[in-house]
Amino acid sequence: MRLTILGCYSATPRSLTNPTSQLLEIRNHMFLIDCGEGTQVQLRKQKLKFSRIKHVFISHLHGDHFFGLPGLVSTFRLLGRESELHIYGPKGIKEAITLLLKLGDSWTNYPLLFHELNSKESELIFEDDKVSVRTIPLNHRVYTNGFLFEEKLAPRVLDVEAVAKYSIDKSEFRNIKNGKAGTAKSGESILNSDLTLDPPKPKSYAFCSDTAYKEDIVPLIKNVDLLYHESTFLETEEHLCAKTKHSTASEAARIAKKARVDKLVLGHYSTRYKSLELFKEEAQPIFSNVELAEDGKVFEI
Amino acid sequence: MRLTILGCYSATPRSLTNPTSQLLEIRNHMFLIDCGEGTQVQLRKQKLKFSRIKHVFISHLHGDHFFGLPGLVSTFRLLGRESELHIYGPKGIKEAITLLLKLGDSWTNYPLLFHELNSKESELIFEDDKVSVRTIPLNHRVYTNGFLFEEKLAPRVLDVEAVAKYSIDKSEFRNIKNGKAGTAKSGESILNSDLTLDPPKPKSYAFCSDTAYKEDIVPLIKNVDLLYHESTFLETEEHLCAKTKHSTASEAARIAKKARVDKLVLGHYSTRYKSLELFKEEAQPIFSNVELAEDGKVFEI
Repeated sequence: MRLTILGCYSATPRSLTNPTSQLLEIRNHMFLIDCGEGTQVQLRKQKLKFSRIKHVFISHLHGDHFFGLPGLVSTFRLLGRESELHIYGPKGIKEAITLLLKLGDSWTNYPLLFHELNSKESELIFEDDKVSVRTIPLNHRVYTNGFLFEEKLAPRVLDVEAVAKYSIDKSEFRNIKNGKAGTAKSGESILNSDLTLDPPKPKSYAFCSDTAYKEDIVPLIKNVDLLYHESTFLETEEHLCAKTKHSTASEAARIAKKARVDKLVLGHYSTRYKSLELFKEEAQPIFSNVELAEDGKVFEI
Repeated sequence: MRLTILGCYSATPRSLTNPTSQLLEIRNHMFLIDCGEGTQVQLRKQKLKFSRIKHVFISHLHGDHFFGLPGLVSTFRLLGRESELHIYGPKGIKEAITLLLKLGDSWTNYPLLFHELNSKESELIFEDDKVSVRTIPLNHRVYTNGFLFEEKLAPRVLDVEAVAKYSIDKSEFRNIKNGKAGTAKSGESILNSDLTLDPPKPKSYAFCSDTAYKEDIVPLIKNVDLLYHESTFLETEEHLCAKTKHSTASEAARIAKKARVDKLVLGHYSTRYKSLELFKEEAQPIFSNVELAEDGKVFEI
């Protein structure tokens, strides 16, 4: 699983900082998470084959999280895309994108499928045999969801040493991989668990932006391998959090600690601060395994 | 009058090329012409004080000409703008911008005034004592206008040598500047035209993008100092012009020649071409005073 930060700053795009967008590569999927203005250029700069994106997840309808989407949808049309594009986002996103396409008489020549969200409870919004995606209801000024991306448990792996030890015939390997017992040369039946190894632990990633401090999300993101939690402010600006419904770096760290996540990544920084290191310094005493998102940075999970 | 090219490429934004946008500084106005995705970043990169923009002119509702507008409107809000912003563009632009603001519950705290256009004839859309702006109806796949920006004739200028020659008293200077006759020391009345000089010739700029070859515009843009005319294609791709309703470099040059403009600037290039010089080489034999638009380039008129 690989996460590329395309943009991790709040509010307005600037010469060297981009609004929120991330690309998650997970079990052959390319999931785009949020799409601030300039996202398609960021995708090009990172040399990502972005025509492979089939699912776009939009947390909320503030401009810094989705004003790059109309352009991306149009670019896919110009590039001759034929495959479906699925867009998951708050109710209203379909009307917005559809209106812009209508005004430009620029309907897509590929299927554009909207999955509008309005539940206040966490819900499963995407699932196949390898991956699931659930919403994480957040607390922001407008209806907002984070997203939990989870790999599914892969099949058990054949234990090469064990099958050799019991002299199991190769013709049985497929059945054993599918969970069946095996037959030793002696005729004895061998339990599947004695012939296979546990598959790699499935990985998980939780994206939580934008939100005020919200402890309710802790059970939803428990033990994830990577948590991206917004930290728009430092504690010195904590008084701005209630009105703007954003979090401080220490609040993000407290959520990470309570949820016992493996690693925390901070982002959605206000551009008022001179150094991003200040965010890390504030979070680290509370939760030590913390890193800073930066535009273009890649996290291997 | 100064024209800054913020973006001059057609279709999709790329790492090093931007879709259409220009900033025209004319008699203390800052007029923004079209606003493709990324325009606000381009304004920052050029270090233009873009909060001074009060009038935005949108030619048509294809994404590469206006998908940067919602973000710019939002940025003005975040920067605490209080002064009016006027947006001139095709019918539908108000609904689009209003819907996006509504979905984000992000109404502007400054007056946002739309002037929707739907006339097929040229019309006066802005005028004050120094400048006028008229539409130039173009021929594109959707309803599209170019814009003609004209300085008005400034007042006549006091002729310092003449007033000295006739020993005119300083107390009369204001009246003379306002067109009145003067009185020589001898008591003789002196014609205003003998005491003043012609003001500088008013300058004019015509923006014409996107359009197929359209000779009807020639009378509207006759003798302008600067004509920006799109040249999406070279003649080798002329067969694409009819379907896409774009022009070749040689067609742009023919328009410039017929309109007897002073200078032609080409732009809105398809990104299929390796070198922009090809556009200039094609246009120059037809109209010699031709230059190439490039992102970030400034034309002093």
